[in-house]
Amino acid sequence: MIVAFQGETGAYSEEALLEMFPAAEPLPCADFEAVFEAAESGRADRAMVPIENTLHGSVHQNYDLLREHNLRIVAESHMRIRHRLLAVEGARLDGIEAVTSHPQALGQCRDFLRHRLSDARIIPSYDTAGAARDVARAGDVSMAAVAGRRAAEEYGLITLASDIESNHNNFTRFLALARTEEVERAKPESDGTPMKTSVVYAQRDNVPGSLFKSLAVFALRDIDLYKIESRPLVGSPGQYIFYLDLEGSHDDEPVRNALAHLEEVAASVKVLGTYAAEPVRFVSENHETG
Amino acid sequence: MIVAFQGETGAYSEEALLEMFPAAEPLPCADFEAVFEAAESGRADRAMVPIENTLHGSVHQNYDLLREHNLRIVAESHMRIRHRLLAVEGARLDGIEAVTSHPQALGQCRDFLRHRLSDARIIPSYDTAGAARDVARAGDVSMAAVAGRRAAEEYGLITLASDIESNHNNFTRFLALARTEEVERAKPESDGTPMKTSVVYAQRDNVPGSLFKSLAVFALRDIDLYKIESRPLVGSPGQYIFYLDLEGSHDDEPVRNALAHLEEVAASVKVLGTYAAEPVRFVSENHETG
Repeated sequence: MIVAFQGETGAYSEEALLEMFPAAEPLPCADFEAVFEAAESGRADRAMVPIENTLHGSVHQNYDLLREHNLRIVAESHMRIRHRLLAVEGARLDGIEAVTSHPQALGQCRDFLRHRLSDARIIPSYDTAGAARDVARAGDVSMAAVAGRRAAEEYGLITLASDIESNHNNFTRFLALARTEEVERAKPESDGTPMKTSVVYAQRDNVPGSLFKSLAVFALRDIDLYKIESRPLVGSPGQYIFYLDLEGSHDDEPVRNALAHLEEVAASVKVLGTYAAEPVRFVSENHETG
Repeated sequence: MIVAFQGETGAYSEEALLEMFPAAEPLPCADFEAVFEAAESGRADRAMVPIENTLHGSVHQNYDLLREHNLRIVAESHMRIRHRLLAVEGARLDGIEAVTSHPQALGQCRDFLRHRLSDARIIPSYDTAGAARDVARAGDVSMAAVAGRRAAEEYGLITLASDIESNHNNFTRFLALARTEEVERAKPESDGTPMKTSVVYAQRDNVPGSLFKSLAVFALRDIDLYKIESRPLVGSPGQYIFYLDLEGSHDDEPVRNALAHLEEVAASVKVLGTYAAEPVRFVSENHETG
């Protein structure tokens, strides 16, 4: 099974897809559009994309691509972003003079870098996995990269420090996507796991209380929501689209009825998929940095 | 008036604050915590922070800081992120061999870079303004930075190309913050501009339909919503907090009543501020790249 992801070999997205599909052959893509196209064209069997992060919010671009492409969500996972300080064999923490990574990862490890490597030069890079690759290629014991476990394995680097991020509750939610036809042919059997259904819909123009009405279709049927998010519709001032994750499978009668009811009150509705709900496993706050 | 912002001199946040407060003295801070602390301690009169972006979603970290700090939102603005290709005097587009910027900005200009500068080396940097400063310091006509108008002015660079971002509807919403005591002392007079009130609240534990109930307090009073967003409460699986932007001022009787009603049905409520609503001015899709 070929699974497309955005980034370089060793990226966090690749780590997430290998956790979900251990036997997969990862297909690195330059950008999210290329990931969606790889899955839609059949060049990949699945796409794995980040959809939201506990610190940085929803990846609107991937919601847009979900609306445009003929793919369905088939699974979700929440991956804790655990940064490591990686270097070549023989390197020691007190010998590190330069640290490279994506600026966001460097920012997330600010406390560690300030306290333990205050004299090191900080070198921004395009992504975490690319930084690890650069350190491996340079073969210089005074250089280190901030990246994940998978990058360490891929580029044969040793780990000088683990869990060096300041906030241990930095989770990225990933979605696995498959072609719609394939999903409809082979419906997943329910094994008793709670199911989740994702929907995106547009409000009717200028109808006051239309959000409330659209949520009533779920509340009236005791269907709980996991997520709701509004977003201004680009190009249509005053109009909004909504992302909704609700409890239950698309095949459950109450959910089916609620979605039919939603079509009556909304301007447009697209069901993005039904899949097993995977809870976030938060880390207790007194967790120790390794 | 001193206004704190995150980033280097010439950053987009500085551009946004100078648009709102043209006579302000900008105070650059290393991170968002430092921005909030500067305003809370009185070292700055205002803080200016990004809260959401049309491509990258909400900045949850700043919502968290709003919950923790004693600051109130006093104004909002939507700034279109317009990237330019900047270089030193004498440089020409066809002589550029290296382009530097923050990876996110480079990604947003991918089409321009691919078509117009396909042979140029891409050098990631920590931020857009820092990239512009580096180009100015190097004084090399073969180097360019992707950054904004303000960075061009600050570092004396010329603009080789404007609006080079692929998506012209990339807007960041900024919030101006002031100390709560100050806001309560000097209430802004309403001049007929539509007002917006921002609220964050936590759902009561495990009460089905509690989101619907909490929204009923607004719907029953015909109060429209500009934004709603749920977010899992870190450390409390299954519990959520909600960000709400509603129509009207905190001083309007229906809004006051609705918020009192919300306190009855929610576990906790914090009003983040009341301020003039500023609409997003979307760009039509056939806009030409300059």
